[in-house]
Amino acid sequence: MSTRPRLYVPTDLQAGGPVALDENQSKYLFRVMRLNVGDEVRLFNGRDGEWLARVSEILGKSAGLLKAETRLRRQAVLTDLQLLFAPLKKTRTDFVVEKATELGAEVIQPVITEYTQSERVRTDRLTHIAMEAAEQTERLNMPRVMDAVHLIKAIENLPRDRRVYYCDERGDNEGEEWGGDENRARPMADVLAEHGKGSAAILIGPEGGFSPQERQFLRKTEGIYPVSLGPRILRAETAAVAALTLYQAICGDWKDAETGGVSDD
Amino acid sequence: MSTRPRLYVPTDLQAGGPVALDENQSKYLFRVMRLNVGDEVRLFNGRDGEWLARVSEILGKSAGLLKAETRLRRQAVLTDLQLLFAPLKKTRTDFVVEKATELGAEVIQPVITEYTQSERVRTDRLTHIAMEAAEQTERLNMPRVMDAVHLIKAIENLPRDRRVYYCDERGDNEGEEWGGDENRARPMADVLAEHGKGSAAILIGPEGGFSPQERQFLRKTEGIYPVSLGPRILRAETAAVAALTLYQAICGDWKDAETGGVSDD
Repeated sequence: MSTRPRLYVPTDLQAGGPVALDENQSKYLFRVMRLNVGDEVRLFNGRDGEWLARVSEILGKSAGLLKAETRLRRQAVLTDLQLLFAPLKKTRTDFVVEKATELGAEVIQPVITEYTQSERVRTDRLTHIAMEAAEQTERLNMPRVMDAVHLIKAIENLPRDRRVYYCDERGDNEGEEWGGDENRARPMADVLAEHGKGSAAILIGPEGGFSPQERQFLRKTEGIYPVSLGPRILRAETAAVAALTLYQAICGDWKDAETGGVSDD
Repeated sequence: MSTRPRLYVPTDLQAGGPVALDENQSKYLFRVMRLNVGDEVRLFNGRDGEWLARVSEILGKSAGLLKAETRLRRQAVLTDLQLLFAPLKKTRTDFVVEKATELGAEVIQPVITEYTQSERVRTDRLTHIAMEAAEQTERLNMPRVMDAVHLIKAIENLPRDRRVYYCDERGDNEGEEWGGDENRARPMADVLAEHGKGSAAILIGPEGGFSPQERQFLRKTEGIYPVSLGPRILRAETAAVAALTLYQAICGDWKDAETGGVSDD
């Protein structure tokens, strides 16, 4: 693969502009990838599209400068999609953030629910994971990783016109395994097809699902829709990936490759 | 959650039949879950549906007997879906097998491609991961995990009427990043909607994608369809989860919860 390294930088990008690298990025380019002065790199900052840059100076293997040259891609308008999820064990939380970034979520909001078995959520650590995933996945911006808040608060913070789809794998009959078939949510693909595009959020509960009180709150709030992800019980992180995939394929930027993030200037 | 422990056993299941547990399962039930004689467990063997069983004897915390009582669910006919994937680094391969099991793949076939950077694939280890995922996910059988074979061989082994969807994220213009927009594959959701149900296989390449020779082979073989998973470049394991999700939601057993694996007898 001839693909040039691709980095997120906070700097403004314009022709001829110098770009300083942080220590990790310098180590990656100069120690791991062994780039030399004149070699090509791609840069994005979430505002100015994607730029071709060239190494202009190397200062001792852990610092260096690039110079931006030409814009390769315009800043695309991305799908307005958020992920709200209950934190899981450490590696599974990391995984959700990595995958949500690949799948184009714009905001990643950890939410604390009644059955959340959370360790402390480190926003800085998750932001770093999102940055690396954004660099790898060809997207033109970074998702915003928010500090964890309580579920009710997170829902209240959303504008009222943002539709919320939450994965609800249980029926309502408490006597049966997984609540039986009573009042099961409809398949997510059908619910999405009905509502179409527009601002959306996907909400994924913890391994134990939502509490009866939470389900009641979610069900009675306008603009919040329970959805089913099939007849098997998915782990929470699988549900996150599956729900984001369905949203992008049915309502988001997978529908038409030409309007997606790869369109050229 | 009041859900009873759920185990895969190779034994035939019938009313009153005794079921011996292996050491790991016994440890799980008697040490971790602290079950006692008379407590309830659910069992499945891939043939006889799901059964309610009861602990009938505990022999020193790492061995025990259950007795099957009543059938809870009929053996459902599952989607005829296979996953062919190029092995990745160890934890990411484990992840693909776990998720493919949750998402209902019936056969999991590791394939060696030109760009595969595989460590040795341990079929027994992956089978164990699939078993644990099957126990957790409410499915009624185990996927078969096959020994790794070369890509061409794996394709030749498939019956001719099985459609193969492979994720091809590159265009054909070798001069541009990711091959530009030339001859990009169509969105997977569109291709699936066109072909509908029937035997299917999903093929996921390694991180580096397929070689030009492999792409040529795949493109010229009848019944093999390139598909796109959106404008971002997904990691291989994300592509596997996304493609299995779309298949199940559009052609598989997520379409109608009542025909899925949760229907009661």
